[in-house]
Amino acid sequence: MHPPPPIPLVTLTTDFGTRDGYTGAMKGVIQKVAPHTRTIDITHEIPAGNIRSGAWALRTALPFFPRGTVHVAVIDPGVGTDRNALLVLADHQFLIGPDNGLFSWILEEATDSRAWKLSDTSWSPIAGSHTFHGRDLFSHAAALLVREGDLESVIGEAVTPIRSEWAKTIQVESGALGEVVHIDHFGNVITNLALPSGWDLQKPLLVQSGSTTFQGLNRTYGDVEEGEGLVLVGSHDFLEIAVRKGSAAEQFAITVGDLVTVLDPNGSS
Amino acid sequence: MHPPPPIPLVTLTTDFGTRDGYTGAMKGVIQKVAPHTRTIDITHEIPAGNIRSGAWALRTALPFFPRGTVHVAVIDPGVGTDRNALLVLADHQFLIGPDNGLFSWILEEATDSRAWKLSDTSWSPIAGSHTFHGRDLFSHAAALLVREGDLESVIGEAVTPIRSEWAKTIQVESGALGEVVHIDHFGNVITNLALPSGWDLQKPLLVQSGSTTFQGLNRTYGDVEEGEGLVLVGSHDFLEIAVRKGSAAEQFAITVGDLVTVLDPNGSS
Amino acid sequence: MHPPPPIPLVTLTTDFGTRDGYTGAMKGVIQKVAPHTRTIDITHEIPAGNIRSGAWALRTALPFFPRGTVHVAVIDPGVGTDRNALLVLADHQFLIGPDNGLFSWILEEATDSRAWKLSDTSWSPIAGSHTFHGRDLFSHAAALLVREGDLESVIGEAVTPIRSEWAKTIQVESGALGEVVHIDHFGNVITNLALPSGWDLQKPLLVQSGSTTFQGLNRTYGDVEEGEGLVLVGSHDFLEIAVRKGSAAEQFAITVGDLVTVLDPNGSS
Repeated sequence: MHPPPPIPLVTLTTDFGTRDGYTGAMKGVIQKVAPHTRTIDITHEIPAGNIRSGAWALRTALPFFPRGTVHVAVIDPGVGTDRNALLVLADHQFLIGPDNGLFSWILEEATDSRAWKLSDTSWSPIAGSHTFHGRDLFSHAAALLVREGDLESVIGEAVTPIRSEWAKTIQVESGALGEVVHIDHFGNVITNLALPSGWDLQKPLLVQSGSTTFQGLNRTYGDVEEGEGLVLVGSHDFLEIAVRKGSAAEQFAITVGDLVTVLDPNGSS
Repeated sequence: MHPPPPIPLVTLTTDFGTRDGYTGAMKGVIQKVAPHTRTIDITHEIPAGNIRSGAWALRTALPFFPRGTVHVAVIDPGVGTDRNALLVLADHQFLIGPDNGLFSWILEEATDSRAWKLSDTSWSPIAGSHTFHGRDLFSHAAALLVREGDLESVIGEAVTPIRSEWAKTIQVESGALGEVVHIDHFGNVITNLALPSGWDLQKPLLVQSGSTTFQGLNRTYGDVEEGEGLVLVGSHDFLEIAVRKGSAAEQFAITVGDLVTVLDPNGSS
Repeated sequence: MHPPPPIPLVTLTTDFGTRDGYTGAMKGVIQKVAPHTRTIDITHEIPAGNIRSGAWALRTALPFFPRGTVHVAVIDPGVGTDRNALLVLADHQFLIGPDNGLFSWILEEATDSRAWKLSDTSWSPIAGSHTFHGRDLFSHAAALLVREGDLESVIGEAVTPIRSEWAKTIQVESGALGEVVHIDHFGNVITNLALPSGWDLQKPLLVQSGSTTFQGLNRTYGDVEEGEGLVLVGSHDFLEIAVRKGSAAEQFAITVGDLVTVLDPNGSS
């Protein structure tokens, strides 16, 4: 894979919240090093230290960005320890952040990927701290990459990134056992179960989570009455349990990690 | 009205929250289709499905943007049903979103407006989903409009948008009955009552909401003591009930939809 | 000090929250007056009217921005009263906002600074309100400064800004008494105590807050076990009390303004 040149577009994904000025400092570093860069927030509301949630947000947003976008992701409970700092090139997008599983979903779904440690030159020569690598290492490396225009300016040796067990797509055939990978802002319950492309959404599929069973697939929330539950293929291409104008997570008491089974009562597809 | 050309400035207003990566995906789509676009967040904190609240946020921000700005607004509880998807041109600004009353305030106050259904070509050919039109239809249409530079690239037949009853400005004469249209972040209570331009703010106006009566108009919060209530003409040009360094909504137990009366005890103006 | 030219980069720091469209209106004003400006949010989540918290956020982010950046800051409980409206030039950065102590930390640490009242021409000729100077005065002045390219376009007479007592760096020698100046999103407790540069982080320093005493300095959070407290020099260069993967503020019941003592039990450094 020949890497595309980085473009002056950097996204930020962190668990820093938005009230302390920390993300502002990251943007300042980027503007100072590479003034033509446009910085876009993916989210700063990942729960503190929740790598799994951060990995999902990256998977939700990144595939829609242009080739050569540089994505900085900092959910980094191990900051200052000897965990690696990475540059990942996955399907023509650059990702920069700690090596702790944060890129698991992106790597799971990438057609092609490579990874390197960030080099010592990636560090801000002035502000290097042991507690704020988001500012002094990761944002600085992203801006250097944009400014210098090639990977060599920020990478060291090639490495194999950590990939976590929770980021696994399960292809549904006539039946499968998966889990809940994310609860979104609306309370929609997202699983890691993917239907084969071209499946009939009218199939008499049975989806079960805890003591609740759903029969059949719907196309969209409006297919059922308000307050009623349904199963559909969500915008992320996975099976999703939802409630029209309500929270499926609350209504059915489902949380991240809960098991979900899917069965075709008519046998194999 | 001859439409102005769209400029590469797109704003986003949604109820998606900021923690799932959904708004990031929208920004990615825009950058991929129209790379020179600058995207500005109005808000993503509209309460889920609250069209009335979204309509107010649009009215607060949009009139201040340059002619030709493209505004994407997605508070869309009917996503995937047969509700229309719109492009509205109102006072030289483009608005894109569902036809559910979301543009009521903008249309109420626009000098000139027209509206069309979005055309089939507005859809992202790759990612079309039944549940995330914010990404696959509305953001994609906005980016196409910016890239192609003319309305024809995204519009179908002309339509008349839905306008909701709650978006009605009431001109105060010597007396009027209106309602609370918004409670803001500070607890300020905003009504739909507009004074005739040029009125004396020292008039012995009586404003009543529930069992609370306010007498006279103030100019700004600092005109009264801390913790004290007052009525003024807010930055939105409507009568507003406020408490200096406090929340009028809490202190006087007022909510959206409550009736508000205004009376000039000296008779007609 | 010869001022650098303003660059088309404006940051925003407010207590407006993000759900009403108020910050959107500010961005609209800026885009209309100076279309090439890029606007960056520092934060809009400063607690309502909390000048001290806003001053800290500015101190956290601003020093990392390029020379000539224009920073608009609006935590302004005295809006509409006779408090001054300021332009401050501090270490080659422009700051615009109310004169109420909001720039105290920036002024405390600036090598060089000057300040002026904003001139009458800074006002938006159309939308001037008595309650939303963030939109009608401060954002408008910032955009004028960017568009016109020189200070004279927005300043009046020179003034001395208000500086609050809480913004004072205390240099630690063998011992010092300081206070907690900020609690961040993670619950980290930040003091105004600064170690002399070059101090050994392994020194047997005693740090005391309330009934809790910490011994010795750590380098980063990962130096201790999960749930354990530590003291380190934070990314802001001040002594910070933290808990690995926890909230020090909660665990040790510490709040802003609490006293903190530091002692070198071996005597002077």
